[in-house]
Amino acid sequence: MNRLKLIPREEFERIRNTGTAEKVRLALIADMCRANTLTAVKLAGSGHLGSSFSAMDIVVLLYYRVMNTMRLGIDHPDRDIYFSSKGHDVPGLYSVLHSLGVLSRDNLLRLRRLGGLDGHPDIAIPGIESNSGSLGMGISKGKGMALAKAFAGRGGRVFVLTGDGELQEGQVYEALQSAVQLGVTNLHVIVDHNKVQSDKLVREITDLGNLEEKFRSFGWHAKRCDGHDFASLEAVLHEFETVRDKPKILIADTIKGRGVSFMEHPQALREGGGLYRWHAGAPADEPFWAGYQEITGRINALLEKQGLGPLRLEDIETEHKAQSGVSSEYVAEAFGRALVDVAKTRKDLVVLDADLAADCRLRYFEEACPERFIENGIAEQDMVSTAGGLALQGFLPVVNSFAAFLASRSNEQIYTNACEGKRIIYVCHYAGLIPAGPGKSHQSVRDISLFGALPGFEVIEPCNGDETRMAVDYCVNRSKGNCVLRLVIGPSPRTIELPREYRLSIGKGVFLKEGTDGVLFSYGPVMLHEALKASDVLQKRGVSLAVMNMPWLNAVDRAWFAEVEVRFPALYVLEDHCVVGGLGDRLLRALVEQDLRLGRKFRCFGVEGFPACGAPLEVLRHHRLDGESLAERLMEHLEAKSSTPPGRQP
Amino acid sequence: MNRLKLIPREEFERIRNTGTAEKVRLALIADMCRANTLTAVKLAGSGHLGSSFSAMDIVVLLYYRVMNTMRLGIDHPDRDIYFSSKGHDVPGLYSVLHSLGVLSRDNLLRLRRLGGLDGHPDIAIPGIESNSGSLGMGISKGKGMALAKAFAGRGGRVFVLTGDGELQEGQVYEALQSAVQLGVTNLHVIVDHNKVQSDKLVREITDLGNLEEKFRSFGWHAKRCDGHDFASLEAVLHEFETVRDKPKILIADTIKGRGVSFMEHPQALREGGGLYRWHAGAPADEPFWAGYQEITGRINALLEKQGLGPLRLEDIETEHKAQSGVSSEYVAEAFGRALVDVAKTRKDLVVLDADLAADCRLRYFEEACPERFIENGIAEQDMVSTAGGLALQGFLPVVNSFAAFLASRSNEQIYTNACEGKRIIYVCHYAGLIPAGPGKSHQSVRDISLFGALPGFEVIEPCNGDETRMAVDYCVNRSKGNCVLRLVIGPSPRTIELPREYRLSIGKGVFLKEGTDGVLFSYGPVMLHEALKASDVLQKRGVSLAVMNMPWLNAVDRAWFAEVEVRFPALYVLEDHCVVGGLGDRLLRALVEQDLRLGRKFRCFGVEGFPACGAPLEVLRHHRLDGESLAERLMEHLEAKSSTPPGRQP
Repeated sequence: MNRLKLIPREEFERIRNTGTAEKVRLALIADMCRANTLTAVKLAGSGHLGSSFSAMDIVVLLYYRVMNTMRLGIDHPDRDIYFSSKGHDVPGLYSVLHSLGVLSRDNLLRLRRLGGLDGHPDIAIPGIESNSGSLGMGISKGKGMALAKAFAGRGGRVFVLTGDGELQEGQVYEALQSAVQLGVTNLHVIVDHNKVQSDKLVREITDLGNLEEKFRSFGWHAKRCDGHDFASLEAVLHEFETVRDKPKILIADTIKGRGVSFMEHPQALREGGGLYRWHAGAPADEPFWAGYQEITGRINALLEKQGLGPLRLEDIETEHKAQSGVSSEYVAEAFGRALVDVAKTRKDLVVLDADLAADCRLRYFEEACPERFIENGIAEQDMVSTAGGLALQGFLPVVNSFAAFLASRSNEQIYTNACEGKRIIYVCHYAGLIPAGPGKSHQSVRDISLFGALPGFEVIEPCNGDETRMAVDYCVNRSKGNCVLRLVIGPSPRTIELPREYRLSIGKGVFLKEGTDGVLFSYGPVMLHEALKASDVLQKRGVSLAVMNMPWLNAVDRAWFAEVEVRFPALYVLEDHCVVGGLGDRLLRALVEQDLRLGRKFRCFGVEGFPACGAPLEVLRHHRLDGESLAERLMEHLEAKSSTPPGRQP
Repeated sequence: MNRLKLIPREEFERIRNTGTAEKVRLALIADMCRANTLTAVKLAGSGHLGSSFSAMDIVVLLYYRVMNTMRLGIDHPDRDIYFSSKGHDVPGLYSVLHSLGVLSRDNLLRLRRLGGLDGHPDIAIPGIESNSGSLGMGISKGKGMALAKAFAGRGGRVFVLTGDGELQEGQVYEALQSAVQLGVTNLHVIVDHNKVQSDKLVREITDLGNLEEKFRSFGWHAKRCDGHDFASLEAVLHEFETVRDKPKILIADTIKGRGVSFMEHPQALREGGGLYRWHAGAPADEPFWAGYQEITGRINALLEKQGLGPLRLEDIETEHKAQSGVSSEYVAEAFGRALVDVAKTRKDLVVLDADLAADCRLRYFEEACPERFIENGIAEQDMVSTAGGLALQGFLPVVNSFAAFLASRSNEQIYTNACEGKRIIYVCHYAGLIPAGPGKSHQSVRDISLFGALPGFEVIEPCNGDETRMAVDYCVNRSKGNCVLRLVIGPSPRTIELPREYRLSIGKGVFLKEGTDGVLFSYGPVMLHEALKASDVLQKRGVSLAVMNMPWLNAVDRAWFAEVEVRFPALYVLEDHCVVGGLGDRLLRALVEQDLRLGRKFRCFGVEGFPACGAPLEVLRHHRLDGESLAERLMEHLEAKSSTPPGRQP
């Protein structure tokens, strides 16, 4: 691969200070930001180009023309505030903030890296006004900010950008209603109406109808214009200043992937057979360079036309990324295939999705059984309650979304369904700490605890493809209750080997490695890999640590557990979850049910604090959950004297 | 009080079989159901009359004229399905089901009692099609049912009733969108548009705008008519049969409290100075009899006009209800007052409410500081994110709702706010098992666990008015993190006495009673009362049980705890919560951090399974959490031999 290149900040200064028409300047800056966004995402190995590009002209216009923020300073109380509710378009915003000198070159080149720029917005980053990434919260938050400005008598406007797929989230309509009622007039919402959500057209997922009519029916002042035409955008935003009695919304018609011909959605959808493939993820080398040359070529042509010298690009030193091991196995893939298999004999099985069908590997099912596949759009609460209705009528719904959204946002709907005692299978995709690039809005380390107090739920996390197939079969054909299947979304660091004769048996784990000095319980491919690494490290130091795969996260077979625990002086748990509310709490409770024992060591390792953003290994190290760190922590604990004198009894 | 009376089922038969005009028959039946609803609620001591009455004509029309359900049978696969999404109008539905012979006289007279009829719908009850009570889920669920009917090729329509205040919940709009996209045409929504929510006009809380226009902008076929005019209602529902390409919605203009003049909202709001006081709760004797006589008088007058004999009323044996002790103290009241006090010096404090201001005792604040009070309507997610926006701008928001809704429905919004590191105080009202009359949609026994894995949250439950004031002061003025204040909503069974010198100190509890054989940790007025009762019972049996008030539900001061636990051979925890994820788990973790000790007994008592519905004492007994049952369970555990031979070590 050629060396990646960045357009340095000075080049933006040069363009700003030319005497060309404003429209030309803005177009140049937007394209320059697109080029830098492309570089940052390529370097990061992931990130959202499609909507960074569709929103780019709007963001550039806001920061360069409309808002007072750069003039007053990004911390000034009277500043205009901008943030994106969808949040995944933040690489584009970072490039704009870099172009303005708010973010440094080093910042921009550390997208999705530890200590760098989070994959979704985080207010710890200069210029970022709100955390986002989980959809549908932005208008509410902007409303809170606008209220605060009014309460405090501060100046400045609040601009919130939303996606269009995002408008499927119900919270949007709560905010539309309450903003009008509360007289919030200093709130300007811009819909980046790029017509495409994850990988399909919005109207194929859940159509939004006539948006202007809809927003007006909620009492908002609504306008619509071309979201790539600076003059039109500016005119509408200017007109909004004259509307003083209502909150305002602009539907900006944009093109997803704008600026790179083959990423622009009309062409991209044709080439993808109806699927858009530039929503997330870094392009391979060939399309990357094709795109990069298209953008920079256009910039240079325009510069030349204006009588200006060509772009000066800086070469980038590409640091070699610390990599955790990676196999070709995806448990999610095994899940997707198993679902199709099991559906052959279970005609009552229906599958529900909230616009994550590709990530959740549901396309196999969608293709095999389209009549039993429900694409519900980005509306988790509605999806879960719909599943409840299906279950009441005798179907077995399999409900899919990312763990962070499903377990949390639709928690009350899950509870209400559970009260009815009908069986539903909830599949929590993207569970756990890794991948850590998207950041804390997407990493799910609370889901076990969120299901913990629901009566009659079995939470299972399989460690490899075979166990995933067994788990799907168990949930569908053998369980009598509600099931939660917790799945890692990324590639397994290694394929965990299970004994040939291994079968899933409720509440029982299986040794992956024998040992005598202690036993480490864990689950899932990511953490079992680290557990095995830790055991290997300890072995070299003469410590014999057994490793147990425990896929039952909230069920313990007592007789089995009594036989296991009695063999070890020290019991450890490694969570792909917070320490609170995970497997450790459950094992501890099982242990104590037989009264506490003398001098037994017990410790639980898990994610403490919010999950960090970065490459897998650097984030595991940050949380001291990688094999090496674990070995150290285990050693330390094993060697520590018990704080209780043996035999001391109250 | 006079003997309460019921109109027996035979009287409904008599009216059905008369030759009077349909319109007259339906009016008679609806009023007879109103009379029985009034009796049932009076007997229960609580229940929702206002919306039972506003919806009554619609429900009677559906069951007596429109639906095939009674003809086919309530379990027939091709039956028409009706349920109410708001659910609190279920006393009205129960009366209708009684009139049709689906529910017995005994059923109806056991409203809100253990083994009787739940305060909100539960499918364990004959004729009930869906659990509801937490708002906004019904259209989604009806959509699931309609999809199931289509998938299975079954006949029958799906009718869902919603409230109007309920339309403030965003999930409604998710369902409106996805139902159209998925081609769900066999779904008939009726809005009981009675114009009043908990105690104020909908338009004063969060106006809904032009509902027909709004629903049409979502692609629904929308009509509007008088919800008390049987002919108009029937005509619209009949016309709906001809609309085959869209889901259908009828906005039925109704009167809250319809049928009892002083409960009808125009008059009631005038008399209540703008507040409606017949939303929930049983009327006192005088208004009860006035209302009862008004309804039965009207029925008899109409019967006479038709040449029919007067109503035959049956006297009811009123069973004496088992009562737990009750004091005049409400911790919620102390909270409401303390909030006003603390706001005097904290000008950054803002209070948010989701239409539960009266129940949450926020009216004091609303009156004292109207400029800092935000009535956000029934939209918990929007409220929480709005608080996030206010916090980002430097305010200290105090966010209020019932624990069951706040901790669960807005969980992801709370997490997102937490990621930003700004302080917010979440007040979980109506926490715990009691009052148990409303049923499982309202009882909150999962909230501690739902906050458990959130980094940096302090969860506090005060046990009396004094401790509540201290807790408010702590949360506002002393804490550095996010706080959750967990409050019992009902009267304290007794005023828990705290030592005069007691002050809240992070992670430390306080003895309410000394003892030597064991210590029982608990919190909040309800369970501490039972803990003290248990200790008294045990004392008589020669067992000395200490009782500890532990208001810190997820923080333990280690040094303090080490000193306490060492004094007792047995540690117990009584949760006003599920066993999973409550105080017990936290104390156990604290215990094990110093390694497990020999022969220590530890047990946690809490709500197992879903919380039962009923009167306080019968529900406490059902869960074996009343003082007597606890004493037995403690005795049993104290006397049991440890299962581990002392000194046995692996």
